[in-house]
Amino acid sequence: MELHQEIKTLAAQLGAILTDKCLWITTAESCTGGGVSYALTDTPGSSAYIDRAFVTYSNQAKQDLLNVSAATLTQYGAVSEQTVREMALGAIAATNADIAITVSGIAGPGGATPDKPVGLVWFGLHINDKQLVFKQVFTGDRAQVRLQAIVFSLKTIIEQIK
Amino acid sequence: MELHQEIKTLAAQLGAILTDKCLWITTAESCTGGGVSYALTDTPGSSAYIDRAFVTYSNQAKQDLLNVSAATLTQYGAVSEQTVREMALGAIAATNADIAITVSGIAGPGGATPDKPVGLVWFGLHINDKQLVFKQVFTGDRAQVRLQAIVFSLKTIIEQIK
Repeated sequence: MELHQEIKTLAAQLGAILTDKCLWITTAESCTGGGVSYALTDTPGSSAYIDRAFVTYSNQAKQDLLNVSAATLTQYGAVSEQTVREMALGAIAATNADIAITVSGIAGPGGATPDKPVGLVWFGLHINDKQLVFKQVFTGDRAQVRLQAIVFSLKTIIEQIK
Repeated sequence: MELHQEIKTLAAQLGAILTDKCLWITTAESCTGGGVSYALTDTPGSSAYIDRAFVTYSNQAKQDLLNVSAATLTQYGAVSEQTVREMALGAIAATNADIAITVSGIAGPGGATPDKPVGLVWFGLHINDKQLVFKQVFTGDRAQVRLQAIVFSLKTIIEQIK
C-alpha cells in the first residue's frame, strides 16, 4: 500500500495549492473507501487543509452522515449523478470545508447492472461554490478501478481549483 | 497506492472472519487518514461488514464526530491512550458496529515532542464489549509509519477476534 508515485505527486501538488490558497478540503467516499483521504494525508503538513473526512459505504451511511435523500437513492441508485451531487452538498454542510470531493462507483467484481457496468464511477465536486459532477468508466480489476478513481479525483480538483 | 500484498492478505483474512461471524466494523483514523478503511474495503464483498468510517484528523473533528472530550485532548493530547480509548467509544456510539479500531499517532516528519517521538502510534480497539489499547513506536519515514500502523491494526483485530 505504498502510495503509487503518481498519487503521491498529485497529492503533494494539490496540498501545495490548498496551503497557498488557505482552502480546506473534505472527502466523502464510497467505492474508494478512504483512499482519497489516505492520499491527501500522505503529504506532511496536510493538517493545514484537511481536518475530517467520511467513508459512506452503504446507502444508510450516505443518508445518516451526508443527508442524501432516500428518494434519490431509490430512484437513481447510489452510483449516480444525483447521489454524488447530494453527497457533496452534504459533506460541505457537515463541515467547514471549502472543497468536497465525493466518489461513488462500482469497483467490482460484483455489483454491475445492465446500465451500470463494473468500472463506472461518479464524482461530485463542490468547489468555489460551484457544483460539478463527472462520470468515468475505468477498466481493470477492483484495485485498478479504485486507484484510477483516486487519481481522477486528485487531478480533477487540481484542474478545477486553478 | 496498489495495496501492499501483506495488507491485501490481512484485509481478506479479516474480511472472511467478519463475514463468517456476521460482525460489523468501523474505523476512526487520525494519522492513517483513511488507510485502514481503504484496506478493509479492498476485499470484494466488504459491504457485508463495513458500512461507514471516520477520518478525524484534527482535535475538533475528534470532538465533533466521536465525542472525544476537550479535557482529554488538552490534558493528554491527541496521541494518547485516553484519546484512542474515547475515539473507540465514540465510534461505537456513532454507528451500529460491533468492532471499532482507532488510530492516532505522529507520522512525522514534524509533530514530535520530548515524550512523544515520531513513529509513536496509539490504537484503540473495541471488540466483543472489551476496550483494548495498544502503543507502538514504529521506525521509518512518514509513509512507512502509516503503513506499519495499518498492518498493526489489521493484525491486532485478527488476533483479538478469535
